[in-house]
Amino acid sequence: MLVNGDPGNLISIRDRGLLYGDGVFRTLRASQGHAAGWPLHFEKLRHDCAALGITCPDFNLLSSELETLLLSHPDGVVKLIVTRGSGERGYAPALTPPPPTRLWDISPTPVYPAEWAKLGIKARVCQLRLGHQPRLAGVKHLNRLENVLAAAESSDSGIGEGLLLDVEGHVIEGTRSNLFLVSGGELITPRLSACGVAGVQRDRVMDWAARHGMQVRVREVLLDELLMADEVFLVNSIIALWPIRELEQRRWTTFPVSHRIRQYLEGHNETQ
Amino acid sequence: MLVNGDPGNLISIRDRGLLYGDGVFRTLRASQGHAAGWPLHFEKLRHDCAALGITCPDFNLLSSELETLLLSHPDGVVKLIVTRGSGERGYAPALTPPPPTRLWDISPTPVYPAEWAKLGIKARVCQLRLGHQPRLAGVKHLNRLENVLAAAESSDSGIGEGLLLDVEGHVIEGTRSNLFLVSGGELITPRLSACGVAGVQRDRVMDWAARHGMQVRVREVLLDELLMADEVFLVNSIIALWPIRELEQRRWTTFPVSHRIRQYLEGHNETQ
Repeated sequence: MLVNGDPGNLISIRDRGLLYGDGVFRTLRASQGHAAGWPLHFEKLRHDCAALGITCPDFNLLSSELETLLLSHPDGVVKLIVTRGSGERGYAPALTPPPPTRLWDISPTPVYPAEWAKLGIKARVCQLRLGHQPRLAGVKHLNRLENVLAAAESSDSGIGEGLLLDVEGHVIEGTRSNLFLVSGGELITPRLSACGVAGVQRDRVMDWAARHGMQVRVREVLLDELLMADEVFLVNSIIALWPIRELEQRRWTTFPVSHRIRQYLEGHNETQ
Repeated sequence: MLVNGDPGNLISIRDRGLLYGDGVFRTLRASQGHAAGWPLHFEKLRHDCAALGITCPDFNLLSSELETLLLSHPDGVVKLIVTRGSGERGYAPALTPPPPTRLWDISPTPVYPAEWAKLGIKARVCQLRLGHQPRLAGVKHLNRLENVLAAAESSDSGIGEGLLLDVEGHVIEGTRSNLFLVSGGELITPRLSACGVAGVQRDRVMDWAARHGMQVRVREVLLDELLMADEVFLVNSIIALWPIRELEQRRWTTFPVSHRIRQYLEGHNETQ
């Protein structure tokens, strides 16, 4: 673990990341000393810092810290947190901002049932509904209580992911993943202008579609439409892609498009 | 500063308070070794922990830690944070929860212009609109990015507070205070069932009204209604009460009810 470039696992209790969730984060998969898609994650980090008005640390500085981390821990789930740093008491950020806090951590790669990637997962619909906040929508910030409450609803280890709807009943994402439908030869993914997190793998799926001449629609999606889709799948940087095989009364058994995209996500981690 | 009962100012970067804002907090005013309204704050803490499913630390344990803190720092703004503690990676809380993290900090009491309490403040309407999340409404949790973004909108030190409206245009609260209207001999305060933080002083104002035979209405409030009110005031545990003397084109010059309540809040910190 690295705290502002030095080995350590502690931060100040006055850090705004703790006090207000005033920061952003990334989760990457590292394998054999290599963190998949790091440049893409950095672009997201820069975007998300800008959304909150946080000074984004320099790419070369972060890359060097990542390299240091991977020297001692070449495999696992890498987490990078950037917060607005410590400051005066009160919600308002300091007019002369302190340096942002940079935190790196690495954990063992989680082990999921091998069939989930190939045969699909059982998913559930979360009871919690995501609130709308356009100012924070799409940003992977540290205010994640909605995800915590949604994840806490079920402890059934046979369920791979919970799907989150918003207050208006639109399907938005998984608790820790982005969502796609395959329907009539098109890809459909929910619009994230009011809530949700726009992950790196979501962009990569859209890039894949553009290269393969497949239309992608980014729009509102209702649960009924999802249940009628030809395929439904979830993506993130740790799992790559899981098709859904079971949701409520619906069963899916074949995932031809999902598997093509999964092979792309798993096999082309660097060549975008 | 105390971290789980020991002197210190550092916590683990794996604490869920940092990772997800998975915790709650209180802010109290200490004077001459005495923290005003501590038992009321503890009741709120217990309520808020329950809302998130966090095990609330014992009252006697926290009281003893508060006493320790005040021995070395008898005056200032006391902050208590309770988080769900550290755990496995992932949003879902552990089925066997770790002990919650207890953090105490104390800062110098802020100095505001002396006339604000007597002659009122200039307030502004924040551009940010609060999203609706009934599961978190009223709770003083650590997901405070909306407050941060709202507070960051203005650096005008002549403005005492920003008022927050919700996505539907209802007035909800100040960025760090609760709001009351005096209108036609009644007190009105916004309903906090979809967003906002229900503070200790809000309850105390309602108690005062009940004892003085004054009707309190908890309901939706529109900005137009607020601008037509006889008096408007803000409360929290640090400022006690500030009337508003200027908001948009409206000016208020006398605050008879506000001042009676302010005297109660300032003078009766302990006898509830």
